[in-house]
Amino acid sequence: MSHDFDDAVRLVPLGENRYTGATHPAYANMVGPYGGVTTAAMLNAGLQHPERLGDPIAMTVNFAAPLADGAFEIEARPVRTNRSTQHWTFQLRQSGDVAVTATAVFATRRETWSATEAVAPADMPAAAALERMPATGAGPQWPRRYDMRFPPGEAMRLDGIEQAQARSRLWVRDDPPRPLDFAALASLCDCFFPRIYIRRGRPVPIGTVSMTTFFHADAAQLAEQGGRHVLGVARALTYRNGYFDQSAEVWSDSGQLMASTHQMVYYRE
Amino acid sequence: MSHDFDDAVRLVPLGENRYTGATHPAYANMVGPYGGVTTAAMLNAGLQHPERLGDPIAMTVNFAAPLADGAFEIEARPVRTNRSTQHWTFQLRQSGDVAVTATAVFATRRETWSATEAVAPADMPAAAALERMPATGAGPQWPRRYDMRFPPGEAMRLDGIEQAQARSRLWVRDDPPRPLDFAALASLCDCFFPRIYIRRGRPVPIGTVSMTTFFHADAAQLAEQGGRHVLGVARALTYRNGYFDQSAEVWSDSGQLMASTHQMVYYRE
Repeated sequence: MSHDFDDAVRLVPLGENRYTGATHPAYANMVGPYGGVTTAAMLNAGLQHPERLGDPIAMTVNFAAPLADGAFEIEARPVRTNRSTQHWTFQLRQSGDVAVTATAVFATRRETWSATEAVAPADMPAAAALERMPATGAGPQWPRRYDMRFPPGEAMRLDGIEQAQARSRLWVRDDPPRPLDFAALASLCDCFFPRIYIRRGRPVPIGTVSMTTFFHADAAQLAEQGGRHVLGVARALTYRNGYFDQSAEVWSDSGQLMASTHQMVYYRE
Repeated sequence: MSHDFDDAVRLVPLGENRYTGATHPAYANMVGPYGGVTTAAMLNAGLQHPERLGDPIAMTVNFAAPLADGAFEIEARPVRTNRSTQHWTFQLRQSGDVAVTATAVFATRRETWSATEAVAPADMPAAAALERMPATGAGPQWPRRYDMRFPPGEAMRLDGIEQAQARSRLWVRDDPPRPLDFAALASLCDCFFPRIYIRRGRPVPIGTVSMTTFFHADAAQLAEQGGRHVLGVARALTYRNGYFDQSAEVWSDSGQLMASTHQMVYYRE
């Protein structure tokens, strides 16, 4: 039996640079699909493209219109291929209209001097010591596709009480577990609840307009991580007149920085 | 007399969605132009487009190939215009080849609940109390177009001594001073020296492959800032097998967060 994630990002080639796919009910959001899985489907068009060079280094996805449930078409164009880097543009269309645009940089990596300045949270309890956020009740489907475990006091509380800041941490993996790869990591980078919900203590209408992910892990690190929980840390810098940013880091369970991600989100009220 | 920056980002319309411009010697980098001014020229195609809606919210620029000194052509396409948001794709070509791709989201903002979580550096000496980094000697032209003032101990030292971390702060403005606008802010967001130079205490071959900027300021805040110094804070998370990230925040001199920016940079060695 295939994993719902693989079904959700599966594409059928339609000829040069064109692929078709469809939204999947398991990853439904309040309106249309979870943005992470749309991101992963677009990335997947590059990953399975016959002209692909290397692995993802950076990707930006712009959500121009809500997706309707159903089929979509993705154009994935390798606009420039150099010796070790490849630049992509993507468009996702439904009924002929552009709903999502994206760009990506792929590259082959070589071993170089390496160092990490960011520091993984030191006092995070182990995933096994924390309870999974309940995957039941009302609300959209997609959070049930992730096993999320927040340390005490950091789970999202929609209790109407405004918080002074929105930083939070969690352990997260696909549920059921699935070996981590670039598409799954790209999707997971959108799993952090909107910081404005945490900050304001209640949901407000929101929608991501642009999301950028930097892939620090290579394929070997992803394979080493397998299906175990990764550690996410998310925060926001500012909320101002209809738009806020949020950033997150994703760490392997052995303390390697796997990805960093940044988005601008529309909000109302 | 016009400002070199305005000359460097000036575009001539060529018909539907097409503009031509040229690199400017005042903003030359080691090879081709400073990436910030290329970013600003591409953004400018959207800013002066007859179908423009609102102001920039987010922009991602991907540097696919080095620019040659001389003319370029920019295609700026408003791929989707909604009620309050507009999504753009850009391509910059030289001799028919794609050298840079970009996307942007523009939007009209409305007054909403607003708050800032990020905290501006509290112990930064005033710009007037710091000496300007010398704008003379060898090296590329573009840093001379910025008046940069680092606090003691935070100027880039290329003394061959490896540093434990690469965080640094500076006051920066165009030189000669020029009222801040979206194009100038987009350009300034690329002025932070490569974190790997600071970390390793020496230059190594580098090139930005992708850069994302989030615009938190609106036009009124930019006008209020005028030509005075803004405060930048830059850091990196990780350097790994040929690519590192760097992020920065840009604050007004009254403590408002104006922009945040994130890039992935290729490095060798």
